[in-house]
Amino acid sequence: MTLNLKNLLNPKVKMSKMGEFQELQPIEGLEISAVSADLYGDGRDDLALFYFREGANFAGVYTSSKVTSASINWNLKIRRNFVKALMVNTQNANTFTGIKGAQGLKEIAHALSKSLTLKSSQSPKGVSEVVKITDLLFASTGVIGEEFPHLKIKNRIPELVKKLKTEQNKYVWFKAASAIMTTDTRPKVAYEECKIGNKLIKISGIAKGSGMIQPNMATMLSFIFTNANIPSVFLKSILKKVISTTFNSITVDSDTSTNDMVGIFATGKAKNSKIYNVLDPKLQDFEKALHRLTLNLAKQIVVDGEGAKKFITVNVIGARSTSMAKNIAFSIANSPLVKTAIAGEDPNWGRIVMAIGKSGENVIANKIQIKIGNHLVAEQSKVAKDYNEKDLKDYMKWDSIELEINLNLGSANYTVYTCDFTNEYININADYRN
Amino acid sequence: MTLNLKNLLNPKVKMSKMGEFQELQPIEGLEISAVSADLYGDGRDDLALFYFREGANFAGVYTSSKVTSASINWNLKIRRNFVKALMVNTQNANTFTGIKGAQGLKEIAHALSKSLTLKSSQSPKGVSEVVKITDLLFASTGVIGEEFPHLKIKNRIPELVKKLKTEQNKYVWFKAASAIMTTDTRPKVAYEECKIGNKLIKISGIAKGSGMIQPNMATMLSFIFTNANIPSVFLKSILKKVISTTFNSITVDSDTSTNDMVGIFATGKAKNSKIYNVLDPKLQDFEKALHRLTLNLAKQIVVDGEGAKKFITVNVIGARSTSMAKNIAFSIANSPLVKTAIAGEDPNWGRIVMAIGKSGENVIANKIQIKIGNHLVAEQSKVAKDYNEKDLKDYMKWDSIELEINLNLGSANYTVYTCDFTNEYININADYRN
Repeated sequence: MTLNLKNLLNPKVKMSKMGEFQELQPIEGLEISAVSADLYGDGRDDLALFYFREGANFAGVYTSSKVTSASINWNLKIRRNFVKALMVNTQNANTFTGIKGAQGLKEIAHALSKSLTLKSSQSPKGVSEVVKITDLLFASTGVIGEEFPHLKIKNRIPELVKKLKTEQNKYVWFKAASAIMTTDTRPKVAYEECKIGNKLIKISGIAKGSGMIQPNMATMLSFIFTNANIPSVFLKSILKKVISTTFNSITVDSDTSTNDMVGIFATGKAKNSKIYNVLDPKLQDFEKALHRLTLNLAKQIVVDGEGAKKFITVNVIGARSTSMAKNIAFSIANSPLVKTAIAGEDPNWGRIVMAIGKSGENVIANKIQIKIGNHLVAEQSKVAKDYNEKDLKDYMKWDSIELEINLNLGSANYTVYTCDFTNEYININADYRN
Repeated sequence: MTLNLKNLLNPKVKMSKMGEFQELQPIEGLEISAVSADLYGDGRDDLALFYFREGANFAGVYTSSKVTSASINWNLKIRRNFVKALMVNTQNANTFTGIKGAQGLKEIAHALSKSLTLKSSQSPKGVSEVVKITDLLFASTGVIGEEFPHLKIKNRIPELVKKLKTEQNKYVWFKAASAIMTTDTRPKVAYEECKIGNKLIKISGIAKGSGMIQPNMATMLSFIFTNANIPSVFLKSILKKVISTTFNSITVDSDTSTNDMVGIFATGKAKNSKIYNVLDPKLQDFEKALHRLTLNLAKQIVVDGEGAKKFITVNVIGARSTSMAKNIAFSIANSPLVKTAIAGEDPNWGRIVMAIGKSGENVIANKIQIKIGNHLVAEQSKVAKDYNEKDLKDYMKWDSIELEINLNLGSANYTVYTCDFTNEYININADYRN
């Protein structure tokens, strides 16, 4: 499914089937490469490396799952806020792979630190700097519980390091974004700019995710790179804030991954004036830009949801609290009956009523107003006066469907983005390992 | 999907595709009829009436949804524990049908009370007894939000009352159980006997449900009839107890209906000695029989889950608490990724790991043991030593799949019954209203 991403911010627009990607800019201080360790057996790229010769401030958020991958465990253990590199593999999640999975990762870390140290000694500056294994972050995505192919990965590390590119044109970004995909049908990239003081700040982000998606505290994989000079503690608080209404507002199938991670890396090369306070007004533009970027990536994930044919926006307004609005919005967005009705282009708003009811929130049925697109379909506990099935059926044919539920109880609201539930989803997931 | 119901209690047995129904016995003091008001437009039965000439003790539990049907609202309003009749319609849920839906139901109640009063005056005993509208219970199931066809229903009431049958052979029970179906592919019936003192107690039950099923506090529709003489207050506590591990242990799609109701009606015709205490040992057999009956009906609902090809038992054992076991069992049973893997006959136990993790319960990954059938597939955070993909693939071809998760943390356990997630589910629900 390819939608016109420019239009994603306005879901009322009928989507073009022609996808458009933003052109990502290089981030000074970052080098990127991607190669194939042939983990899928079809030669596609499956390893990506992001290297910061002079290091980068780092902040990350991780899955809320109680069972986590060896790579997540590694990152949580080293607890660094200044790092030298991030390596990502796809195809194997390195989760429930026992001690062997953790040991395999450690071997890879040693090999990578050696290769990067060697590379560093060959730098034009001629200054050799040791890259320690605790300078390294890892992320994995793919099948859970299968033996981690650490040798195959380790053997490709010299090549991966050799191919690092300082100048990242859009093809380099695409190659890296493609090398972290699993069932994704297209890479997810986004770019934003802003100013901190008089310095131009560039933010380039990539993401992957297609199934097993209901982020909670963190999300699938997304890596964001910026030349801004921002301490990692402030990066962290801004990142947490923006993902609460972006990556944490999406769901494909209500399933939360064991490997979710969002990381932001700041090289400081923009040389903006130092930030001493997270409330520094100079950061406002950066926060807004980061919000746009993460919302853009989050929507791309939903658009590429496994089997998705339609992008769905669920707006819950007039709630007593944000948590009430969020709970109801997710109850609707995760309802298989709502999602299959939308797949069938059926304006079956009764199922929206059901999903509101099952949320357990104390709604007042008589006050609820339900809109599908601009069409009011129900109010005062019954179908709306001007309900016109024909108009609604026409609307349901669009690629992007907007549901608005006004609870008329207060002023809090929350928006969740999701996709429809189709035969394709079943087919992809019934056959995933075959 | 038709399974050999006798084998449902032993999910390891490869199911026969030949369905078998228990033969239901008549309950003295009960009269049944079913007719068509042509609500589906294809002439199928869609109205069922259960009449107790001399009344019956009643206990009911209802949906936990915050949005409920006019019929549920009616039953909750009249709050009776001694009733004369229950009328059920299918095709229209009478939910979100506004004041008109409630008024239509009231008109029906008046018409039904008039017809039943008339019938009562024609009884052989010649004693006319007025049936009041507050003696009547109602249940509805079907599409939410469409205008309630109260006139069509009302017009059929004389015929419905005229056709009441005292002697319920198995065809009468089948006709009634069929008249409450929506997308169900077969009626659900169950029968049990027990003794209270030296009296033979008969319990006949019917149920419907196929989609929009994750009961919570109550469930879809199920009506149970017995000749026992038990006060309604004790019926209620026994009913609540047995459904907590039967109807409340099943899920098809995690969606909770606005119309769920389980009712038990006791005519007292067995003339067993009076019960003064819910802990009376004379009730133990009755409770066990009722548990068998409701578990049987609950499993029939799962077997007939929309699009279901496989019956799945999720046993979580070794938990710290029942709520921990239940939470994890439902997290697995509701995971689209687990359910699609089983549909694809893929022993993808990594997804079970994922579903355990996303439950949010504090498990210890290293202690978890996962079995599929009799095959240990994972322990100590990795694939089991003797894991044999070939054996597992053979097991996955069975109609009934058992998953056992031992958390090795304590002694609490919980079992949830569910079905796989197939293309059929999508097809049924994408086209439901067309």
